[in-house]
Amino acid sequence: MPEEPVTLADVQRAAQVLGGVARTTPIVTSRQLDEAARATVFLKCENFQRVGAFKFRGAYNAIASLPPEQRDRPIATLSSGNHAQGVALASHLLGRQAHIVMHRPINPLKRQATLGYHATIHEVTDREEAEQTLRELLQQFNGVHIHAFNDPRVIAGQGTAMLEFLSSVPDLEVVLAPVGGGGLLSGTSIAAHGLNPSIRIYACEPTGALDALHSVRENRIVPMNTPRTIAEGLRTSLGDVTLPILRRHLTGFFTVEEEEIVTAMRFSFERLKLVIEPSSAVALAPVLRQEAALVGKRVGVLITGGNVDLSVYFETLAAN
Amino acid sequence: MPEEPVTLADVQRAAQVLGGVARTTPIVTSRQLDEAARATVFLKCENFQRVGAFKFRGAYNAIASLPPEQRDRPIATLSSGNHAQGVALASHLLGRQAHIVMHRPINPLKRQATLGYHATIHEVTDREEAEQTLRELLQQFNGVHIHAFNDPRVIAGQGTAMLEFLSSVPDLEVVLAPVGGGGLLSGTSIAAHGLNPSIRIYACEPTGALDALHSVRENRIVPMNTPRTIAEGLRTSLGDVTLPILRRHLTGFFTVEEEEIVTAMRFSFERLKLVIEPSSAVALAPVLRQEAALVGKRVGVLITGGNVDLSVYFETLAAN
Repeated sequence: MPEEPVTLADVQRAAQVLGGVARTTPIVTSRQLDEAARATVFLKCENFQRVGAFKFRGAYNAIASLPPEQRDRPIATLSSGNHAQGVALASHLLGRQAHIVMHRPINPLKRQATLGYHATIHEVTDREEAEQTLRELLQQFNGVHIHAFNDPRVIAGQGTAMLEFLSSVPDLEVVLAPVGGGGLLSGTSIAAHGLNPSIRIYACEPTGALDALHSVRENRIVPMNTPRTIAEGLRTSLGDVTLPILRRHLTGFFTVEEEEIVTAMRFSFERLKLVIEPSSAVALAPVLRQEAALVGKRVGVLITGGNVDLSVYFETLAAN
Repeated sequence: MPEEPVTLADVQRAAQVLGGVARTTPIVTSRQLDEAARATVFLKCENFQRVGAFKFRGAYNAIASLPPEQRDRPIATLSSGNHAQGVALASHLLGRQAHIVMHRPINPLKRQATLGYHATIHEVTDREEAEQTLRELLQQFNGVHIHAFNDPRVIAGQGTAMLEFLSSVPDLEVVLAPVGGGGLLSGTSIAAHGLNPSIRIYACEPTGALDALHSVRENRIVPMNTPRTIAEGLRTSLGDVTLPILRRHLTGFFTVEEEEIVTAMRFSFERLKLVIEPSSAVALAPVLRQEAALVGKRVGVLITGGNVDLSVYFETLAAN
């Protein structure tokens, strides 16, 4: 068996790096949720994390861990989502320049927030052009690339949420997290199984973007070409670092329909009073449909973020 | 000086009655909020309370405190809002029948929730008909009336949120709460000043429904005839129990424009990831506009509830 590229010790070190910088996010429980789930459910609320998503953890850990000889080089990354904000804020806090390549469509909330953290945005039309632009930036500015998930330091940072989770709720039996590139789920797996090898870990994925399920099954990176899901954070393929970690750790997958994503978001807003983004709802949905493997169990759900565009709602409200 | 109709001891007794039944709601802080407010702000999040609002506290305390000879009589009240849900759930938990008179317009979310707690709803067209229907119900069923705010047992129950608040953050300097009928603000005042007479307490009221401000100023109940505010919970006049309490305790009023209510709600949803209703936003708005009396202070804001109709948003989301 090959050695893990990330270990529990790496996640524990990341937790030290993030101490006093990342937020120790609250764990929310709800009588109504437990009744709906027929389980004892704990929500680790990374929607309350800085930048509104867990991505700050990995980005900050990665940038803070760069070797001294890279200290004066700017940071560059490709992300239209929460990783962009994570890298922007982490770079700003660490006194580094950040270049973010975004391809359209771009969530205006995430663009605005990224600019607010003083990053430079390079806006392009599609994925291919984005990769080309990133290569040019890395060359032109001698930049350091911080990949959104396929990076052991990023993975170690994301795993710190699970360390906090188990330190508050040590007897979790099952953990659910959504899967996009697999960074969060990799860090979560390493942290959870490092502390308790018997915890069952499930990946939650929209049926409109089932690349991770097929990748894990076929042991090769199945590309995500035409994702059809509102969970924009999950429209990514796995990487060569995350795939083997997931194969080693996952108990299984729960696939989730688009209607279930909206229903779970609505449950969260209306009943739990928590603003969550569609990707988070993907991990909440299996609980709400009372998946057999979850009923009666102590289930931890990683609520990954809360960056969702509510313009329609507030414009209607202001007009009335 | 006349004796207080509700004392700190009453609030403390209510806290015992509510122990293990009401939720000890979390207190949320946020770096972003503090920066926007130029103050240290603590949000007591009653949107996480059972029924999604503080009203459960007062309703439960009032019904649980009824004398034994009233044990078999049904409960009746007039409310189209959160008090309806509070009375419905409290009655259900205490094994009592509940009759709720609602006049239109009725928030469908609140109607549905009230029915979900097994109450009987009597729907009528306006306030006048509602009062007539309530009188008939009280007579027909020999019912016990639980007023939404003008009742010392209800006021004592609402005050328990402030007890919890000060037990977690004992050095609050200023407290903000919205004012409708004044039940929450009365209980809050009695609890806060009972523990620390130097705390400054401000009532927050929409400019489209300034009856409480005028009532306190003129020392008479100025009726609220044509409220023009989206803060539906605040479209009520004070009562003869609450008015003298507010006159005795309030440091002052902050009046809030409708646009500020929407802006504060949006700040809460988008930045804090908290679903709050317009009434709660009325108490958040003065903090966000950096009121001179709040800057630099340790400010507690009572987030009263999170029952808001999000149908427009979720219908748009589901259609895309």
